[in-house]
Amino acid sequence: SKSYNITLLPGDGIGPEVISVAKNALQLVASLEGFKIAFEEMPMGGAALDVVGVPLPDETLNSAKKSDATLLGAIGGYKWDNNEKHLKPETGLLQLREGLQVFANLRPATVLPQLVDASTLKKEVAEGVDLMVVRELTGGIYFGKPRGFGTNENGQEIGFNTEVYAAYEIDRIARIAFETARKRRGKLCSVDKANVLEASMLWRKRVIAIASEYPDVELSHMYVDNAAMQLVRNPKQFDTIVTNNIFGDILSDEASMITGSIGMLPSASLGEKGPGLFEPIHGSAPDIAGQDKANPLATMLSAAMLLKYGLCEEKAAQRIEAAVLDTLNRGFRTGDIHSAGQKLVGCKEMGEEVLKSI
Amino acid sequence: SKSYNITLLPGDGIGPEVISVAKNALQLVASLEGFKIAFEEMPMGGAALDVVGVPLPDETLNSAKKSDATLLGAIGGYKWDNNEKHLKPETGLLQLREGLQVFANLRPATVLPQLVDASTLKKEVAEGVDLMVVRELTGGIYFGKPRGFGTNENGQEIGFNTEVYAAYEIDRIARIAFETARKRRGKLCSVDKANVLEASMLWRKRVIAIASEYPDVELSHMYVDNAAMQLVRNPKQFDTIVTNNIFGDILSDEASMITGSIGMLPSASLGEKGPGLFEPIHGSAPDIAGQDKANPLATMLSAAMLLKYGLCEEKAAQRIEAAVLDTLNRGFRTGDIHSAGQKLVGCKEMGEEVLKSI
Ligand SMILES: CC(C)[C@H](C(=O)O)[C@@H](O)C(=O)O
Ligand SMILES: CC(C)[C@H](C(=O)O)[C@@H](O)C(=O)O
Repeated sequence: SKSYNITLLPGDGIGPEVISVAKNALQLVASLEGFKIAFEEMPMGGAALDVVGVPLPDETLNSAKKSDATLLGAIGGYKWDNNEKHLKPETGLLQLREGLQVFANLRPATVLPQLVDASTLKKEVAEGVDLMVVRELTGGIYFGKPRGFGTNENGQEIGFNTEVYAAYEIDRIARIAFETARKRRGKLCSVDKANVLEASMLWRKRVIAIASEYPDVELSHMYVDNAAMQLVRNPKQFDTIVTNNIFGDILSDEASMITGSIGMLPSASLGEKGPGLFEPIHGSAPDIAGQDKANPLATMLSAAMLLKYGLCEEKAAQRIEAAVLDTLNRGFRTGDIHSAGQKLVGCKEMGEEVLKSI
Repeated sequence: SKSYNITLLPGDGIGPEVISVAKNALQLVASLEGFKIAFEEMPMGGAALDVVGVPLPDETLNSAKKSDATLLGAIGGYKWDNNEKHLKPETGLLQLREGLQVFANLRPATVLPQLVDASTLKKEVAEGVDLMVVRELTGGIYFGKPRGFGTNENGQEIGFNTEVYAAYEIDRIARIAFETARKRRGKLCSVDKANVLEASMLWRKRVIAIASEYPDVELSHMYVDNAAMQLVRNPKQFDTIVTNNIFGDILSDEASMITGSIGMLPSASLGEKGPGLFEPIHGSAPDIAGQDKANPLATMLSAAMLLKYGLCEEKAAQRIEAAVLDTLNRGFRTGDIHSAGQKLVGCKEMGEEVLKSI
């Protein structure tokens, strides 16, 4: 029977709790669908800093590279917030993305009927929101050079970064975005700041060029400031959004909060070939870490994305997705999505209920 | 008696309509408060492109520089959207900001009790929102060099921009922000991406250094992705926000949409010395231009900011602000903020009603 290697990176804060629950779900659906998974758990982020002194040990990156897919919990915490750049947990995450060359970050933001009240938006605005942000993840200002500190002609201290895109980087993320839109409702909105930035002008030019390969997808363009407004005004107007690394960071977080349940949202980071990286979009929530309060569903759904996009085990993925919905329908809620009349459970119990539903 | 020179830049789209109404209000409060205003109307944006061939003619910049303050309507439109960079209306606006050295852009986002229903956010989330975004306006990635197009080592076309801040640029915007927070509720949140960008690390370092001059202001820091979320989750947590040019562009537009009435929101752009630039935050709305449908209240309130920050005519400013509220209380609404039971009026009639209230 088929067998896969999965690297688990529990990371920091609530990471270990949500990963342990998701691991159980992966194991169960594997046995039901008749394949095997071998897990390798590796240190990453603050957890790695504390033990090995770097946020992404070579062994961890190598394990992720050799595996069929990697599932990450969360990284970061107050303890390491004032570390120098190369000793920040976040730097480890950026190194992992770069090391795996996962340039395409898929971030769905969906308002489930069961959770529409969790949104701060009015019901009629929030209900039915179902959009996907396709964020470029290994280029732009996150990785652009030159970067650093220096002095200007007046002897003043300066800090600088470079926003830069090459045509091929835009082309490949655009293709992923068009493919994604094609499998969804056929609408793609490319977000840039082409009225000001040259990097965005090239972005728009290349997206328009690639569009000719996808005549069935309806392409539109929006400036990033307007997109930030439109997500609040009428998020339902969006199907698929494609944008650069930093705009995607901002807009995908905004979109996720519009759903009101960021404890529910998964993400997938994919490369041209090679293993993908799957992680919940929420952070490490150090304030509730170790208290069995975390919502494990975003990690469960990330595991489902891992099965679907990473292993092509579509049926196993659907088992997890259906079980998450069933568990919500049966009234179980962690604190972050709890409302009157629902059963309040902790991370572990939520995990067990999902296993029952599977 | 005192006399001021004001440059009016009607610009494009609905710009001329809203400027004409605001001019009447300025004239009326001037006569009531016993000072004189001489207006000089100059072309700018698409209007200037069509006549003179550049988006900011020298005469226009010189008029703005010599005047006591400048009031801008709006610029841009489909017609010029595909122009080359140096022939875009937006480029004229950036040249004007740079030419006047107005590095501090104050963008209030306030939910008026009369208009709380206009927000897409739930009433309990939207009501009482009263925040101010202090955006750095003449630095960062908007103006940073090098910028442009080129080829990388693999012969691929690239587009690039530079995000750069010098210590003095951060210090001066931080001081304006601390002063602003001090006059408000004493809370300042500095927004950056210091977990990734060197330019943001310097930003945070300098903001912390300047904070020692303002021990009475409570300073906090937030990453830009989190700020985009928190504005949706609980906008009332914010008093004053200070951030760089591009993050300020995005977050101030998001914040304005949270109020639900961007037709109501003014802005002021100020320099160390020299005349300020005042403009509504909304765009030129080419789809409703020339139809007497625009909401002139954002421009009226920008005129009030001009009186207050630009001319130190506080009383005249208050007359306009009070008249805008009174007109709303009397039930007059333009289409963008209209709801059942209110009197729907056009741009001109709204202007006349505000004059009556004054
Ligand atoms: C932790 C941080 C470096 C990261 C990013 O900015 O990409 C995070 O915000 C995310 O969106 O995954
Ligand atoms: C028109 C554009 C150049 C401008 C900007 O990005 O600053 C606008 O969006 C604004 O916020 O005033």
